[in-house]
Amino acid sequence: MAGGGDTGGGYAYNFCAGPATLPRSVMRRVREEFAAHADDGASIVEISHKSPRFTALLESAVTRFRELCGVPDGHHVLFVHGGARMQCSAVPLNLVSRSPSRTSGYVETGFFARQARAEGARYGTAAVVASSADTGFDRIPAVYPDDCPPDAAYVHLTSNNTVYGTRWHSFPHGLPAPLVADATSDVLSRRLDFSRFGVVYAGFQKNLGPSSLALVVVRDDLLGHALPGTPLLLDYAVYAESRSLHNTPNTFALFVLSLVLDWVGEQGGLDAVERADRDKADVLYRELDRSAFYRPTAHPAHRSVTNITFRLPDARATADFLRRADAEGLRGLAGHRSVGGVRASVYNGMPPAGVRALAGFLREYERTRG
Amino acid sequence: MAGGGDTGGGYAYNFCAGPATLPRSVMRRVREEFAAHADDGASIVEISHKSPRFTALLESAVTRFRELCGVPDGHHVLFVHGGARMQCSAVPLNLVSRSPSRTSGYVETGFFARQARAEGARYGTAAVVASSADTGFDRIPAVYPDDCPPDAAYVHLTSNNTVYGTRWHSFPHGLPAPLVADATSDVLSRRLDFSRFGVVYAGFQKNLGPSSLALVVVRDDLLGHALPGTPLLLDYAVYAESRSLHNTPNTFALFVLSLVLDWVGEQGGLDAVERADRDKADVLYRELDRSAFYRPTAHPAHRSVTNITFRLPDARATADFLRRADAEGLRGLAGHRSVGGVRASVYNGMPPAGVRALAGFLREYERTRG
Repeated sequence: MAGGGDTGGGYAYNFCAGPATLPRSVMRRVREEFAAHADDGASIVEISHKSPRFTALLESAVTRFRELCGVPDGHHVLFVHGGARMQCSAVPLNLVSRSPSRTSGYVETGFFARQARAEGARYGTAAVVASSADTGFDRIPAVYPDDCPPDAAYVHLTSNNTVYGTRWHSFPHGLPAPLVADATSDVLSRRLDFSRFGVVYAGFQKNLGPSSLALVVVRDDLLGHALPGTPLLLDYAVYAESRSLHNTPNTFALFVLSLVLDWVGEQGGLDAVERADRDKADVLYRELDRSAFYRPTAHPAHRSVTNITFRLPDARATADFLRRADAEGLRGLAGHRSVGGVRASVYNGMPPAGVRALAGFLREYERTRG
Repeated sequence: MAGGGDTGGGYAYNFCAGPATLPRSVMRRVREEFAAHADDGASIVEISHKSPRFTALLESAVTRFRELCGVPDGHHVLFVHGGARMQCSAVPLNLVSRSPSRTSGYVETGFFARQARAEGARYGTAAVVASSADTGFDRIPAVYPDDCPPDAAYVHLTSNNTVYGTRWHSFPHGLPAPLVADATSDVLSRRLDFSRFGVVYAGFQKNLGPSSLALVVVRDDLLGHALPGTPLLLDYAVYAESRSLHNTPNTFALFVLSLVLDWVGEQGGLDAVERADRDKADVLYRELDRSAFYRPTAHPAHRSVTNITFRLPDARATADFLRRADAEGLRGLAGHRSVGGVRASVYNGMPPAGVRALAGFLREYERTRG
């Protein structure tokens, strides 16, 4: 692996928040698949989802995901059309009927958490259980069981917040309703105790593969409660019964997922990947904390491991930083349009060399800025 | 292009009904894209859907689809998560409120038409306007305006029926409600007069690209009538307003679509592709009609151009035929599990050489069968 910034040699690093860099060996295998079928029109995206090859791939992916992540027997692993945003509708459609008053709880920790609540509010009362809006979403708020409506069907949280660079390092206990987590940006990068969640869902396009599919891990007893009028393909029970094959799924995304799961295994499993992600984040936070020039935006106790957000003294410096980084082959570093600043998204697919290159650039930029 | 059956040389033909063979030059360009980004983790599936590269690709695809297919100004071209089956819910959710009695009409022409009606019936009264069930779906039934409920919000039909090998060669006139067509299996293989349809939708995985995305061409005045509780990402108005970018779309499918549209242009446009598809179908029907051994299942006046269905004398002969065809590199020829028999799906991506190889095998098999 060449050092960062060596764009002359063709090496560059893409810190985009998602769709995001996938492991390079995974993308090599994608190329090999398409090359192997150059002459027969039967690559993995050109064959029936009911063919033995595809059904074996899907079954194996489910089994390996369960093993790698320790999904307990009492939970189903499903793959649902659309990304995480489709789940903002699917969660209330599948779960809210369990509350006689159609009440749910949401923890507000930023942009996507608010989007989820807005959609939840279309199917009942979506109470804010806790919020860090008053500190600009720079932290994860404390959640008190007494603040949760006692008849809530579920309490929704976003386990990692890509826009604000925060994450839940531990999850609330003692709530009167099942936890539901949007784990889009940290699935497969940390060990989650799925037994503590009613539903964990994740859009594919950070750590799992390409876009427009969602992983849904759902506790068996939550199946079968969909509201009348729930579209057939948003009803978790339909996916559970058909093993996610009621109709043609996103076969390319599932193929890439199967390669990603191979890759996780090759790295030594989920704990090894979690350590590697932690190490990559540490390299960057260490560099940011070393200097008063860069200002990380998240409270130190609530920092994300996958989305490292920081600010420069002013907008002019930020624009100059992003321009020079890009010229050095360090791409996709602009913060989310709603907050600005800089964001380095460092998912599983980002090689350690990319993080070292960015750390080197942080030092170099501070030293040589105009 | 080698002759059919030359599997020793690596050539084979995939007649799968979908996901289906894509043009080989399209798949070559997919490989080139991934090869070009082998070292920077920024292939088209690894970058933001809001990046200039992706938004330009999407805008260009919409413009070129409109031009190639002659979509009139008064219709939107949208790309909606999930395939055609998700549209079985989206159509009533978006349209049925236009009928005070929530009534819609469906023409029953086979398996997927019935699935569509079953989902429509969950949102109101889904009347059968016409059906060919009594002749085993071997034809397209006549549709009489008087059989259509006068207050129907729409009348749904399936423009090509993959399971039974039939298609609408002309569409009904004088109905009291907008026509809605599921054109999954003939989109981009025939000229449609979109001005005659309120909605035309098509899953991607036959002629447009890989699975889990739907093209939706919708007349502007039908936007904005979604039922309360319609999931945000099934509301056509949300896609129209965001130019299909309200959230991360299926970026791989849209990338492949853009290559497919290039390919259609290179073939000489839609009329040239339609002629080529007609020619391919003619080669096979001529061969089937020449012999009393093979029995095409569709009424001659209603034959599909893309799905050629036929039977052999008995199940043993069918199994033997499929086994020998497969050994000759002619794959995916089994009929749909609900009807059996043989089905050759000949979408845009099937090269003429594949059809000639199959025609040769039809002759050879009849001559040499045990």
